Amino acid sequence: MSQAQNRYKADLRDVRFVLFELLRMQDTLLGKAPFAAWGRDEVDMVVTEVDRFAREVAGPLNAIGDRVGCRLENGQVFTPPGFKEAWVRLYQDGWKSLCAQEEHGGQGAPFLMHALVEEALAGSNSSFSMYPGLSYGVAELLHAVGTPAQKARYPRRLHAGEWGGTMCLTEPQAGSDVGAAKTHATRLPDGSYAIRGTKIFISGGDHDLTENVIHLVLARIAGAAPGTKGLSLFIVPKRRIGADGSSGASNDVAVGSIEHKMGINGSATCVLNFGENDACVGELVGTVEHAGMSQMFKMMNGARIGVALQGLGVASAAYLSALEYARERKQGAHISQWKDPSAPRVAILQHPDVRRMLLDMKARVEGIRALIFGLAHHMDCVAVALAAGNDDAKVAYHRGQVDLLTPIVKAYATDQSFRVCETAIQTYGGHGYLKDHPVEQYCRDSKILAIYEGTNHIQAMDLVGRKLAQEGGAPLKAFLADIGNFVAAHGQHAELGPEVVALGRASESLTGAAMRLLGWFHGGRIQMVPLAANRFLEMMAEVAVAWKLLESAHIAGLAKASLADGHPDHDFYTGKRAAALYYARNVLPGVEAKAKILAAEDTSPIDLPDAAFATV
Amino acid sequence: MSQAQNRYKADLRDVRFVLFELLRMQDTLLGKAPFAAWGRDEVDMVVTEVDRFAREVAGPLNAIGDRVGCRLENGQVFTPPGFKEAWVRLYQDGWKSLCAQEEHGGQGAPFLMHALVEEALAGSNSSFSMYPGLSYGVAELLHAVGTPAQKARYPRRLHAGEWGGTMCLTEPQAGSDVGAAKTHATRLPDGSYAIRGTKIFISGGDHDLTENVIHLVLARIAGAAPGTKGLSLFIVPKRRIGADGSSGASNDVAVGSIEHKMGINGSATCVLNFGENDACVGELVGTVEHAGMSQMFKMMNGARIGVALQGLGVASAAYLSALEYARERKQGAHISQWKDPSAPRVAILQHPDVRRMLLDMKARVEGIRALIFGLAHHMDCVAVALAAGNDDAKVAYHRGQVDLLTPIVKAYATDQSFRVCETAIQTYGGHGYLKDHPVEQYCRDSKILAIYEGTNHIQAMDLVGRKLAQEGGAPLKAFLADIGNFVAAHGQHAELGPEVVALGRASESLTGAAMRLLGWFHGGRIQMVPLAANRFLEMMAEVAVAWKLLESAHIAGLAKASLADGHPDHDFYTGKRAAALYYARNVLPGVEAKAKILAAEDTSPIDLPDAAFATV
Repeated sequence: MSQAQNRYKADLRDVRFVLFELLRMQDTLLGKAPFAAWGRDEVDMVVTEVDRFAREVAGPLNAIGDRVGCRLENGQVFTPPGFKEAWVRLYQDGWKSLCAQEEHGGQGAPFLMHALVEEALAGSNSSFSMYPGLSYGVAELLHAVGTPAQKARYPRRLHAGEWGGTMCLTEPQAGSDVGAAKTHATRLPDGSYAIRGTKIFISGGDHDLTENVIHLVLARIAGAAPGTKGLSLFIVPKRRIGADGSSGASNDVAVGSIEHKMGINGSATCVLNFGENDACVGELVGTVEHAGMSQMFKMMNGARIGVALQGLGVASAAYLSALEYARERKQGAHISQWKDPSAPRVAILQHPDVRRMLLDMKARVEGIRALIFGLAHHMDCVAVALAAGNDDAKVAYHRGQVDLLTPIVKAYATDQSFRVCETAIQTYGGHGYLKDHPVEQYCRDSKILAIYEGTNHIQAMDLVGRKLAQEGGAPLKAFLADIGNFVAAHGQHAELGPEVVALGRASESLTGAAMRLLGWFHGGRIQMVPLAANRFLEMMAEVAVAWKLLESAHIAGLAKASLADGHPDHDFYTGKRAAALYYARNVLPGVEAKAKILAAEDTSPIDLPDAAFATV
Repeated sequence: MSQAQNRYKADLRDVRFVLFELLRMQDTLLGKAPFAAWGRDEVDMVVTEVDRFAREVAGPLNAIGDRVGCRLENGQVFTPPGFKEAWVRLYQDGWKSLCAQEEHGGQGAPFLMHALVEEALAGSNSSFSMYPGLSYGVAELLHAVGTPAQKARYPRRLHAGEWGGTMCLTEPQAGSDVGAAKTHATRLPDGSYAIRGTKIFISGGDHDLTENVIHLVLARIAGAAPGTKGLSLFIVPKRRIGADGSSGASNDVAVGSIEHKMGINGSATCVLNFGENDACVGELVGTVEHAGMSQMFKMMNGARIGVALQGLGVASAAYLSALEYARERKQGAHISQWKDPSAPRVAILQHPDVRRMLLDMKARVEGIRALIFGLAHHMDCVAVALAAGNDDAKVAYHRGQVDLLTPIVKAYATDQSFRVCETAIQTYGGHGYLKDHPVEQYCRDSKILAIYEGTNHIQAMDLVGRKLAQEGGAPLKAFLADIGNFVAAHGQHAELGPEVVALGRASESLTGAAMRLLGWFHGGRIQMVPLAANRFLEMMAEVAVAWKLLESAHIAGLAKASLADGHPDHDFYTGKRAAALYYARNVLPGVEAKAKILAAEDTSPIDLPDAAFATV
């Protein structure tokens, strides 16, 4: 295998297509407050240069991180060789502070810039990307809900890469059930809190990349209510921070162990023991106790979009690796000569089933990119609308889409990432199963994405239990109306018409399913909801992805028509059309089948007695 | 985690249900020639004792095999600690020779016994099971097509565990394209052949379990035709075998390297160099040159069923591990008390989505078991019909079903095995991603199953390109008629009626899809076939599994009606019904959707130009 085959690959043409042709950020965002300083040249430079960082710095460490992993020695976690140097370079280059506020040393870029940086970092090195990803989330949370002193102290240092950050929710007895957390906080005379408890599965819970690590810890103050409502959020540094901002003595945060995992071995997953020696001090985030869960959600929503981008990045890298392999690997004759054993061998890209697998991956990757970047664009449109003042309806619309789409992209991008990696391995055949090629690692790394930051079932319950009925259902109605308008406008499209009509049918099935779900809530049939939630989320994601792909194909068709002969974009635009047709034809009929299944209201999983699962 | 949680688990009640209640082997096979010596007690003993071997001997080595792996030292492969002792015990106990011919030291048991042994071995230790699995296949092949001298020499030693065996097809430039093999054979004056060439991906290509390893090598004799028709099959021992049967000097078979893989790390995957020093001698299998491919297929069909059983074994173990975890792990309140944070924590088995995942796994595992064991039963029925003489129609029917079902079980059981393992990890949540629990290894181990012994696309092409039209379509017609008869008999079933009717609809969709596929062959639209083959195979497998589950549920219903109150089988039989209802309701609507997709004849993957996949 050549070195080149293990190199991280990204499709920058597609990234630019989404930014400038599908979302048209040059019209909607660039040059407008609060992004007045950002123009197309700046965005273009980021696309190019972040890719260079991913290929040259983060990517070459991906397999090393997997093979060497992290180690715990004398209570200190050491990251794999090269991670520290990559960290320094990352912050020198400023890629993690693009979207941070200027007051914290950031550059005030649109969130879309963050999205493309995250895709590149996660795609090239999923484990490495988690350390700065969490630091960024902590900084943003403290910027949003911290006291003025906290805003002054923490975000700048976190955005500069001087300190790391973590989010500490999970406990041994409480995974998805965050409200069962037992870690407790005791008020101290000076206004600080003594923290005591154990947190598990803490990504980047300790490392050697920074002089200090800022843990955000959910804990219960004595006497607080049970459940999530009684949780408060605390800043708990690894080393105590002096009045001058310097990191001093240990704050009694001990790493109990690090986990041995299926993948993301370069990311240290820690058990953290707070206050074993009664010497762990925390600082309340903001000024109000018992508001921890809603504060943490500020970080979690961003983290969920981050995980969706991780899924996208890994899936895209897996697809492009498989594509390169399929172009280079010669095996078998063309199907038109299958009976002739002396026919010349062709690249496996020529085999119909290999093309089917590749187009399947392409459609999912590019559709998911359009969807997540679309979500990021909605976030940026909120900022633009707010800066422009007085357009409440526009702010509400874009905010509603962000809320509605967040669980969808988290769950769908991560489920599909694992699926795309599986298909990528299959494309390589036996070679894909070897550590000589990157796809088996992509597959292992991606499995966790469906679990952390809220399992994909939690995402589905968030969608159906909260988001569908939010604001009287306004975001859902707006989503369906956007699709309805697209279908009405393009149902007669010369190249895409039948598929656009199929989108309309699928969207109607989705609408019916949403009505049924809401009926279960109101009709006291609450047990049906979790049984159907995952399927509903998948249907909605598939409708959304089909829409984005068809919209992209429509735009590509217009662009292609005006190209000069021989322009290299001809093939690119043809590919957009193929992805849309493939996805619509091969996925949308399944949406209608899922609607039928959902309407049949199968309760078999809750009807059978516990003992009937197996007699073992 | 308790030790118990990592222990291999099997559902022997379900195994016995399939053997004695669904297939009724006591009526169809036991006590009849050629299985006259086998009665129900003997079968029962095998079920119990093989499970004990799996739990006590093979199972405890599964994680060790994964973590330690194999090593290559001075040209010799060493298997993980404990494998050698397990091997000795396996052959002492006689589990691998149950179905071998008595003339070779076997016990002439029905192939169904082999199936349940393979499920147990592969489920408890997939890597370990491959060494004896390949030895068995080599013995069976030589028994079937060897010369009298070869039959006398090899099978007995292989079945006794004295020698190992391998099948050597794949070469660096020729994976699925076996006909491109370059390894060549040169006739020597004494009637033997000098072998020279390199084979890759050779499972068990070398090991320390036996004094010798018997390689079956496909090679081309100078002047032979190109493609598979010019290949001959040779017996190439690792060490030359003297006239007295003793293993002597090296036969110039060198292990170039062993692969580092995503999983099955306890199975040595070797690069083998034959004749680097021009001192590798092979013996033609049988007496006819250029018959290698059809000879090898004798082994490959068995090997494909073996891989299906590997998928079943791993999937079953993953399911039962997840079930045990779900019973023990307490987290969250019951959904009926979801608003009350002080409600008691319940086992996660109580959560609807966890039950959905568990029932999904159960239905797939039990349906696939019924299907593969049904195939094994067809094989045994051939033997009984042949022994009884003069019933050509019965022999043809059962043989036809074996041929038809082999690619289906290989592909579906292995695709679903990976899917079940994914679901098992998701059931554990974050803990499933840790090496502390067995499911992440099951997932990694199972990915190769969709690739080796013919990728699942090759299985699909075998089904649609060979098996559908075989014997004028008689096996397919018989398969569809069997389902039609079941639907006609039970469409009004009190408990299963609507699901049986749905099976009938799905079966009609399948019939239409088969007609369409055959039309493409005859209509010169050959390129459509590989595009649709995988989907067609999946449809057919889903129809077959739904049928087997509904048939099982019907039988369970009758049995349950005659049980005394409080009999422990009540729950077991209820579980059979739940699995059937769940699968029919949640999978069969997808069969009809797939038929629609297939009918739409999407050619987008072959329509787009190569350069349109990506501009990278």
